[in-house]
Amino acid sequence: MTAQPDHIKQTETGRIIISVDVMGGDLGPATVIAGLDASARENADIGFIAHGPKEEIEKLLSRRKRLVGRVVVRDARDVVAMGDKPSHVVRNGKNTSMWSALECVRTGEATVAVSCGNTGALMALSMIRLRKLPGVNRPAIAILFPSRNPQGFNLMLDAGADVRADARDLLQYAMMGASYARNGLSLRRPRVGLLNVGTEEHKGRSELKEAHDLIGLSASAADFDYVGFVEGSDIPGDAADVIVTDGFTGNIAIKTGEGTATLIGDLLRQAFRYTPLSRLAYLLALTSMRRLKQRIDPRRVNGGVFLGLNGTVVKSHGSADATGVSAAVRLAFQLAKSGFTEKLAARVASIAPLQQDTTEPPENGAA
Amino acid sequence: MTAQPDHIKQTETGRIIISVDVMGGDLGPATVIAGLDASARENADIGFIAHGPKEEIEKLLSRRKRLVGRVVVRDARDVVAMGDKPSHVVRNGKNTSMWSALECVRTGEATVAVSCGNTGALMALSMIRLRKLPGVNRPAIAILFPSRNPQGFNLMLDAGADVRADARDLLQYAMMGASYARNGLSLRRPRVGLLNVGTEEHKGRSELKEAHDLIGLSASAADFDYVGFVEGSDIPGDAADVIVTDGFTGNIAIKTGEGTATLIGDLLRQAFRYTPLSRLAYLLALTSMRRLKQRIDPRRVNGGVFLGLNGTVVKSHGSADATGVSAAVRLAFQLAKSGFTEKLAARVASIAPLQQDTTEPPENGAA
Repeated sequence: MTAQPDHIKQTETGRIIISVDVMGGDLGPATVIAGLDASARENADIGFIAHGPKEEIEKLLSRRKRLVGRVVVRDARDVVAMGDKPSHVVRNGKNTSMWSALECVRTGEATVAVSCGNTGALMALSMIRLRKLPGVNRPAIAILFPSRNPQGFNLMLDAGADVRADARDLLQYAMMGASYARNGLSLRRPRVGLLNVGTEEHKGRSELKEAHDLIGLSASAADFDYVGFVEGSDIPGDAADVIVTDGFTGNIAIKTGEGTATLIGDLLRQAFRYTPLSRLAYLLALTSMRRLKQRIDPRRVNGGVFLGLNGTVVKSHGSADATGVSAAVRLAFQLAKSGFTEKLAARVASIAPLQQDTTEPPENGAA
Repeated sequence: MTAQPDHIKQTETGRIIISVDVMGGDLGPATVIAGLDASARENADIGFIAHGPKEEIEKLLSRRKRLVGRVVVRDARDVVAMGDKPSHVVRNGKNTSMWSALECVRTGEATVAVSCGNTGALMALSMIRLRKLPGVNRPAIAILFPSRNPQGFNLMLDAGADVRADARDLLQYAMMGASYARNGLSLRRPRVGLLNVGTEEHKGRSELKEAHDLIGLSASAADFDYVGFVEGSDIPGDAADVIVTDGFTGNIAIKTGEGTATLIGDLLRQAFRYTPLSRLAYLLALTSMRRLKQRIDPRRVNGGVFLGLNGTVVKSHGSADATGVSAAVRLAFQLAKSGFTEKLAARVASIAPLQQDTTEPPENGAA
């Protein structure tokens, strides 16, 4: 077992500390520092440990007055590239900014780390360095997707940490997703749905029928509502807040949804450019269009969260700009402040009895 | 084996005959008849056998002068309801319009049937009555999805006929999808991609790696280009024309994409309604918006096609209006005219050698 932080990490100044991998994003370290600057502006209670080449980061910081006294720099000479194989990084990545950023979570200096780097390498390093929570078989990546719900988006997991998931993994995803929705999204009693090809009970694969029963048994003790099977159209819908599926299906669903949104956005821009009249229309509709764009802007909800580890890791999009980085940091702050890592660990521990005997409900609703 | 039509079915008038289940759609038989009327207007070479309660259909036909002499009515008293279980319909559905519509394909009076009814029941009846093509393990449903390709959409299969598919099933889907793209969409040399969570060869489930090798071996003999693994974002993209996946993943991807498109459409309408200025903008942009809507209108590409049976079945959307029904009939006509059923059978037969010994390429590129 690695060292476990047992309380929310704060500096002497009372700030909550986020560990940030400054390198590895597509737009370079200046963009990440700009994102930290934006976060510092909107939130006085946040502090950072920034990981990367010391001189380069300090040079970038010197231009950001707001960040004076808010950032500790931790020198790391190497960078994980987007094309690096996870196995290579695990063997040779000791001097990378990514490794260093996770190390702060491992030692307890921070409870949440943020990185824009290579997802596969980040997950592999997180597994090796932070290790899985006791009782967790497969960690998962939870992402946010624009939806019809009042909160504006739904939580979906697993978005691609593992291509497989059996019924018990899906139960754990339901528990972890509900816990994230409560602590990260402030949904008091999240509604959880299990992704399937139809909402009728007889449909789908056999592991889904088993997971359906398991999740149904656990819901009330774990303080969420189970709405049963949901379909692909419910990922952007309002039938559930948390959508549970395996990482293969989740990854493909999310990329199909994103690809569809991007296609429509491009066609919309083309349509407005088509005639002088439509160009005028665009000018008149500009404010409304901006409102729409903001509503479905993936940057606004940037941050896949790795769940099921001793510590929480927020994976910001590789191409995130300063707004995107700032959104990922906001999420990391919210999770750190709520003591999410400890609460999640307690939740997962509470389903251990259920996992040992699937025919009996848990003995109590503890944790 | 059932009787096999060995040529394209035409009446003495030279028309190609489509067998149409008039009942079972959400909007009722009048809408289906209106769709046939629209099809008859745009295409002089098409004739119909219409299945349903004789008096009801003849009454609807009496108002459509254009359909005089173009429709033969086949009396069927019962209707398959949307909620009927497939197994129930298979046992008790002999007098339904759906059964009757498929019977015309089975006997060879038509090579393609069209129905707006219950998908599960239609697939179950098609399997029982038409039977699978020799060598086909799992039939598939192929659907069209709006995309960046010049043809305006991509073909994806399986969209939900079966929740499972092994490597050989995926190979058959690739062959059947390419054949459909050639004959139904007039793509001379379709590009086929295999859906996965990444484009790197080492990613994904083991059956996908096996299917990757099998499809790669068959591509040149079967006259399509294999582009390798594709991702969810490629379903609306332009990396491939035909996307191959299992029916579980395909169903969820397609519903996620549709749900996302519908959400954006609704938010767009809201955005335009927001202020008097944006309402004015909407009026100015009306033509452009109509153009956009038509580009991504699912009715324009209405029709899931059942592949791998002795005969071709086009499943029109349950909520299809006359435009949607007409699009499904246009597709059915195109497939019937190209002799698709026979060509597909020949293609599937040509991969039998490959299926028996996966380490050897097929002996020749026959059929």
